Amino acid sequence: MLEKTFSYQQLYNLAWKVFIKIGCSEEHATIASRSLLAADLRGIDSHGIARLTGYVRLWEVKRVNTTPDIGIIHESPSTAVVDGDSGLGLVVAPFAMKVAIEKAKQCGTGWVSVQNSNHFGIAAHHAMMALEHDMIGIAMTNASPLVAPTFSIDKMLGTNPICVAAPAGTEPAFVADLATTTAANGKLEILQRKNRPTPTGWVQDKDGKPSNDPHILKQGGALLPLGGDREHGSHKGYALGAVVDIFSALLSGANYAPWVPPFPAYVPMPAQQPGKGIGHFLGAMRIDAFRPADDFKKHMDHWIQGFRNAKPMEGEEKVLVPGDPEREFESERKMNGIPLLDTVIRDLEELSSRLGVPSL
Amino acid sequence: MLEKTFSYQQLYNLAWKVFIKIGCSEEHATIASRSLLAADLRGIDSHGIARLTGYVRLWEVKRVNTTPDIGIIHESPSTAVVDGDSGLGLVVAPFAMKVAIEKAKQCGTGWVSVQNSNHFGIAAHHAMMALEHDMIGIAMTNASPLVAPTFSIDKMLGTNPICVAAPAGTEPAFVADLATTTAANGKLEILQRKNRPTPTGWVQDKDGKPSNDPHILKQGGALLPLGGDREHGSHKGYALGAVVDIFSALLSGANYAPWVPPFPAYVPMPAQQPGKGIGHFLGAMRIDAFRPADDFKKHMDHWIQGFRNAKPMEGEEKVLVPGDPEREFESERKMNGIPLLDTVIRDLEELSSRLGVPSL
Repeated sequence: MLEKTFSYQQLYNLAWKVFIKIGCSEEHATIASRSLLAADLRGIDSHGIARLTGYVRLWEVKRVNTTPDIGIIHESPSTAVVDGDSGLGLVVAPFAMKVAIEKAKQCGTGWVSVQNSNHFGIAAHHAMMALEHDMIGIAMTNASPLVAPTFSIDKMLGTNPICVAAPAGTEPAFVADLATTTAANGKLEILQRKNRPTPTGWVQDKDGKPSNDPHILKQGGALLPLGGDREHGSHKGYALGAVVDIFSALLSGANYAPWVPPFPAYVPMPAQQPGKGIGHFLGAMRIDAFRPADDFKKHMDHWIQGFRNAKPMEGEEKVLVPGDPEREFESERKMNGIPLLDTVIRDLEELSSRLGVPSL
Repeated sequence: MLEKTFSYQQLYNLAWKVFIKIGCSEEHATIASRSLLAADLRGIDSHGIARLTGYVRLWEVKRVNTTPDIGIIHESPSTAVVDGDSGLGLVVAPFAMKVAIEKAKQCGTGWVSVQNSNHFGIAAHHAMMALEHDMIGIAMTNASPLVAPTFSIDKMLGTNPICVAAPAGTEPAFVADLATTTAANGKLEILQRKNRPTPTGWVQDKDGKPSNDPHILKQGGALLPLGGDREHGSHKGYALGAVVDIFSALLSGANYAPWVPPFPAYVPMPAQQPGKGIGHFLGAMRIDAFRPADDFKKHMDHWIQGFRNAKPMEGEEKVLVPGDPEREFESERKMNGIPLLDTVIRDLEELSSRLGVPSL
């Protein structure tokens, strides 16, 4: 598992040229590349450039439309439903978040549910768009079914992440971005590559028995909701994943539950499709619709400093605030570049040569 | 641990007379009794009539104002901040939820952050107020610090619950109501009374080591965020509890983090008070601000039936939908009454005699 390090700009240039090559406008290629690369910068390697080939394959099987007519199909002063026209979620989600921010400017908050989209990269990138407007940003998405609800052996939900980003004053922003499972699928993929066992509570086998096999999903197993089992609150992780599904798809008219389209292009579409594409939910709350933004930010600084100064247990260096690890990745990688695994580099070289764009 | 069973009306009458006796108006006594008893009906025994004496003690030490001037102190078309004037959260939260619902009628959604309140009972009671208006209801509250964030030995957050209630058509509503900890404090209290060990992952001792002692909180221990430990995603439970704190208190100007006032009246108030009272956050989203309510409800029915028909693992009878267990309690207890433990009955008898109201 050799690695090689590339600058943000190198990876961005490749992504941008690939998106242009598959038909995106320059504007869309720029938005999509930024969304995608945000994952690599923030250390969420599973959701970044490593997925570029996956997005291209979805276009090749005509499940992604690279010239979408993205638009609002229903709205009220504080809400909208956006139809992504099968566009890249990497482009559709920022469009929807802009709508949420504009609504929040007008009437305090904005809430946009999205149908007919595709995978949107990392939730944090979209939620954080709100920060520069002194707003709290919220982003969630449903995803194809990998997760068994408590007591079940059927995979009924995706890893359905939730992100909430809140601005602070002198401290960096609070950014909580979490899959509603014990461990995100990306963590499982890392163990698969290393062929190492998963901790108990991450996955179950096809009969619902505890498993430590990182490959178990290919044998009928499932990821477990946050909590792991009933005794440790898995019904709560299941409920949170369900809320994401309801906000993202039941409100918008997207597909939901086990009927959400898969990310790998070779996996056939579900026979039943109760909606269109996959769904997202984006929200923005203007701080000064509640209290002066400066007051809020001063108290956020106090809150954050309170947690940073909490006493760590023996063997732990410090107590972290949500968003700390990703921000540390971002500043380190902006300076020193983004490491890619050999397998990812080979995959990107093959993609470049297939599409006829300059290689990395 | 003998039990005796009482009708809803018997318990309601006692609560109502007690609230009147401590100075509530008839309207407030009615609202407070309904909020309180909703917990007993739904099987959340820790948050119901068993807490009546606790509320009275807060009034006795002048930390609860039974004639509050509850009002909006800041607003925008879709938001408001409500000052509870130290009133019972049982009364303040329904006031705030009504504001959220009115805002949602006007502009699609309504979001109300509350300062200067007290404990509000169960979140579900407030969130479910939205259902009859064909709205999704959301309720959360912060609470006094019992929970150590990941890697910490300091108690920095309350059990900070989140409830989301969404209407369905022919199926009963979806109601997810969850503390952002592995186990709610009420679950711990049950094990304390039975003197039985807690499962690993519920609590830690004063040094942050895993513990199975249900009494460990009195010895410097802490409840653990949903996930239990870092390997099982406790940083996610911590992040969710933090979001509840930010929405409930940082947006409203209530106390937050370890500075939230304690529920037991004998526990001194925190020396530092960065805000006023405790904070809640209530939200309402009108379904037809997104899509026709009938469409949504038809798909909710389909969603719910999908989960009910998911294959259970061996040894489990069925897959539950969030809200099922509480609804089953409610219909059973409406019919057959609400069982109270001996200790609770004695406590209520003592309260009645002390206040001079007719006993149960």
